[in-house]
Amino acid sequence: MVFLKRLKLTLAYDGTNYQGWQAQRSVPTLQGVVEEKLSLLTKEKIKVIAAGRTDAGVHARGQVISFLTTSRIPLEKWPLAANSLLPPDIAVLKAEEVRNDFHPRYQARSKTYCYYIFNAPLPDVFLRRYTWHLPEKLDLASLQVAASHFKGTHDFYAFSARGRPVKDSLRTVSCCEVTTCGDLILITITANGFLYQMVRKIVGTLVAVGRGKVKPEAIPLLLLCRERGAVAPPAPPQGLFLEQVSYESLE
Amino acid sequence: MVFLKRLKLTLAYDGTNYQGWQAQRSVPTLQGVVEEKLSLLTKEKIKVIAAGRTDAGVHARGQVISFLTTSRIPLEKWPLAANSLLPPDIAVLKAEEVRNDFHPRYQARSKTYCYYIFNAPLPDVFLRRYTWHLPEKLDLASLQVAASHFKGTHDFYAFSARGRPVKDSLRTVSCCEVTTCGDLILITITANGFLYQMVRKIVGTLVAVGRGKVKPEAIPLLLLCRERGAVAPPAPPQGLFLEQVSYESLE
Repeated sequence: MVFLKRLKLTLAYDGTNYQGWQAQRSVPTLQGVVEEKLSLLTKEKIKVIAAGRTDAGVHARGQVISFLTTSRIPLEKWPLAANSLLPPDIAVLKAEEVRNDFHPRYQARSKTYCYYIFNAPLPDVFLRRYTWHLPEKLDLASLQVAASHFKGTHDFYAFSARGRPVKDSLRTVSCCEVTTCGDLILITITANGFLYQMVRKIVGTLVAVGRGKVKPEAIPLLLLCRERGAVAPPAPPQGLFLEQVSYESLE
Repeated sequence: MVFLKRLKLTLAYDGTNYQGWQAQRSVPTLQGVVEEKLSLLTKEKIKVIAAGRTDAGVHARGQVISFLTTSRIPLEKWPLAANSLLPPDIAVLKAEEVRNDFHPRYQARSKTYCYYIFNAPLPDVFLRRYTWHLPEKLDLASLQVAASHFKGTHDFYAFSARGRPVKDSLRTVSCCEVTTCGDLILITITANGFLYQMVRKIVGTLVAVGRGKVKPEAIPLLLLCRERGAVAPPAPPQGLFLEQVSYESLE
């Protein structure tokens, strides 16, 4: 007898060489490579669902995917078995068996994104793929005040991507913190959900504040105005990491 | 009137995409790209000399190069001017004017190399280009004892590359230290000079000790025997960084 079960894998990937998560014809995508290699491993046609469809150049340390399989590979062997087939810029960190109705996106309670800014006069060749290099010194204190204004339940319409219709743009941000480590500025944002480009637009606006172009007190107004054009352009993708996805029933 | 002066630049580079430092026809090398971009900047034919001719895949955070130029670009503008032309994986960190007879290799008093090992069961996609991933736990205490045996003046013939004649293989190692930071093991080696592949052969041997395959007390014998075949194979290039080059007169 063959039993169909649902697996949940936690992935890390360096998004530099991919056209984002979502499978597209004729360009390399993370979903495309992951589905190809998992199909090879299980000798089945694997279709995966991801918690977050990260953009081109965005990284992940805690992407969550799920799929159905009849494979009998023991759970604890999954990371090594999958990593032996995956390219070195994608790695499976953890495998779990979950309920058949588990959906990594719809059932996510919250997601955490991290954004790294390298704030030093000269570039760092080793951080260039993973940070936004800003040579001019940012005003950290204002950045931190501005970040605190994003916390809470707000209509984030102004911080969503242009040209995209959005039905419901109300989201609850439970954490929006700015910390530093040497010349690195780390912005951590946790919310119950994110609009397309929301993190990068928030970071773009925080940087405008850090440069003295926008006052921290303007953030509540920017949220209220619902004007996409009033908000700074999105931060570039390479500083962004999908850090963690949390689920009610599993943790 | 035109004055010819000698400049000393300190460079950082990510060596992943280059066939090493030394210029070769029809393959991308660091020297090739640096000479091309400096020539473009100065509108002169620039030929550079480097302190260390790093191998394919090896990185630098403190490579030193020198060249003659009549350029009038002020010293403090050199890093920004050069970096605007260099690809993002090569950066000029510092520019100094030096005596006309300065030679970055012959006059180096000492060089420091760092080697990074990532010692954790699963790979890290963000460290893969900059570390040697070893899943099995290494014995740190033995590694540290073994490292201490390299300190001092020894004949490093056994730790030089096969098939290469060496005239004088006596070198003085002033530092050979093993430290850790989380799952990272950092091996720092400072010497008055290095034979070709010496750091990578020392690291390869230290790892053999950490795996319990060679006893730390065997190191003095390996040095005495002068047998290249007795020594472990060299560690892979991507964990190696040319960290610093020191000069008598300049510091």
